[in-house]
Amino acid sequence: MELWFTEHHTPNVRFSIKVDRQLYSGRSEFQRIDIFDSKEFGRFLTLDGYMMLTEMDEFIYHEMITHVPMCVNPDAHDILVIGGGDGGTVRELLRYPTVRHIDLVEIDELVVEVCKKYLPQTAGCLSDPRISIHYEDGLKYVRHAENAYDLIIVDSTDPFGPGEGLFTKEFYGNCYKALREDGIMVNQHESPFYQQDAYAMQRAHKRIVDSFPISRVYQAHIPTYPSGHWLFGFASKKRHPVKDVNWVRWNALGLKTRYYNTQLHAGAFALPNYVEEMLRDVEPES
Amino acid sequence: MELWFTEHHTPNVRFSIKVDRQLYSGRSEFQRIDIFDSKEFGRFLTLDGYMMLTEMDEFIYHEMITHVPMCVNPDAHDILVIGGGDGGTVRELLRYPTVRHIDLVEIDELVVEVCKKYLPQTAGCLSDPRISIHYEDGLKYVRHAENAYDLIIVDSTDPFGPGEGLFTKEFYGNCYKALREDGIMVNQHESPFYQQDAYAMQRAHKRIVDSFPISRVYQAHIPTYPSGHWLFGFASKKRHPVKDVNWVRWNALGLKTRYYNTQLHAGAFALPNYVEEMLRDVEPES
Repeated sequence: MELWFTEHHTPNVRFSIKVDRQLYSGRSEFQRIDIFDSKEFGRFLTLDGYMMLTEMDEFIYHEMITHVPMCVNPDAHDILVIGGGDGGTVRELLRYPTVRHIDLVEIDELVVEVCKKYLPQTAGCLSDPRISIHYEDGLKYVRHAENAYDLIIVDSTDPFGPGEGLFTKEFYGNCYKALREDGIMVNQHESPFYQQDAYAMQRAHKRIVDSFPISRVYQAHIPTYPSGHWLFGFASKKRHPVKDVNWVRWNALGLKTRYYNTQLHAGAFALPNYVEEMLRDVEPES
Repeated sequence: MELWFTEHHTPNVRFSIKVDRQLYSGRSEFQRIDIFDSKEFGRFLTLDGYMMLTEMDEFIYHEMITHVPMCVNPDAHDILVIGGGDGGTVRELLRYPTVRHIDLVEIDELVVEVCKKYLPQTAGCLSDPRISIHYEDGLKYVRHAENAYDLIIVDSTDPFGPGEGLFTKEFYGNCYKALREDGIMVNQHESPFYQQDAYAMQRAHKRIVDSFPISRVYQAHIPTYPSGHWLFGFASKKRHPVKDVNWVRWNALGLKTRYYNTQLHAGAFALPNYVEEMLRDVEPES
């Protein structure tokens, strides 16, 4: 018998992983949740059939969404993570002794429960006393926060389904308001490669540019996401993600990472021409 | 009816492209050659069932294997390309007026014939008078070359099948000998991600390190290759690929590129920690 998980990256492109067995399948009020075990990638989580993380390569995503902003501001004490119910982003943040408190706003309590049970590699950290978990819609949560956070990480799903509101102008404006005066917002920014995904990415980028004085995009290699070419957005009130960084200070922390390093941090902001052009040439929204 | 091309990236991972139709299928003395047409990637070439290039993303591979060394030495006049019968690498080289002559050594004449007919986007340049095509084994060809080239580009297939000899110590040693005193060799260097591919990549890297005083690795995002995370090797007698570069001079050439730019050139040499560790920790060969 062979069991294969298949994701359509576009209607014309399929990525398939041989599965040993399905460990969990359930449906919350928001989405379908599945956990599989595989030889190649270990355990992996899908939401509505889309790959969220695998044990094998989740370190790439979670290191890049966390250590880039934490290197720019290692004094970030109060942090808001929106989405990220799998715990991977929080796990990386908790490695900094300077992090005082993390509000984790995850819309779907079942995601957290399932990850705690089946993905201890990421969710094992979620009982740490520095974390408060709020089972709420991130879009609504940030409406009521003001001048409260040094860093917001938007660890969302894709710009359709439950995560859609986390790519809107209202949301980014409220994130700006929720941040302190030298605050930083980082978000998962989709892929530039396949045209149908790129359009949503371009629109979201334009909205971030309109909401923050400094806005850049950086990239990473994530083999289990469509095209493997993944972007993150870096937006801030004051700090430039490459020019205003004390590299020596981050290296002095002595954190052992498997993907991230400070040279790669700087290099990740150097994008291919075709991506730079996409980010620049966005039609204004009416 | 649906027709899908499927490549096994590992025994447990499949990547599939919906095909409009198969334009060509043949077998040479060396390998099976196929050309397909697809909605997502345009036409694409496979050898023995492995993806070589698609019209949609070939610019990434060909720009990165060419413009990185040409930026380090824009005075490269005499160039040897080994493999690369599709013509993409030569197309990029011919954009430099300083390039005087290119020897293209392709083992399989049928690859060139088929690409000329079905892939004019890359092979259209192959009748340029600055090119001499030699239908020979690259491993044998370099044995007889000495102090003859400013740049060698090893645009090979994978380290098994007809391309195997292009990953050996003998071959790299002969490339060194075939280069002039400030010569550069660049090679396609496989992916670091899947363990079974990574081992061949590590061994080849060790052999290059043993053959050249300067040896570095750089990366690019190539969506249609396994994992999408692809490496290139840069080896040279004198020039460092980032420190010894006149960026202004390359930019003054005014070449329009879709992936490559000089910031990205520098950034591409900043590798993830796990890749750096792989390249460092190679067992010596007995």
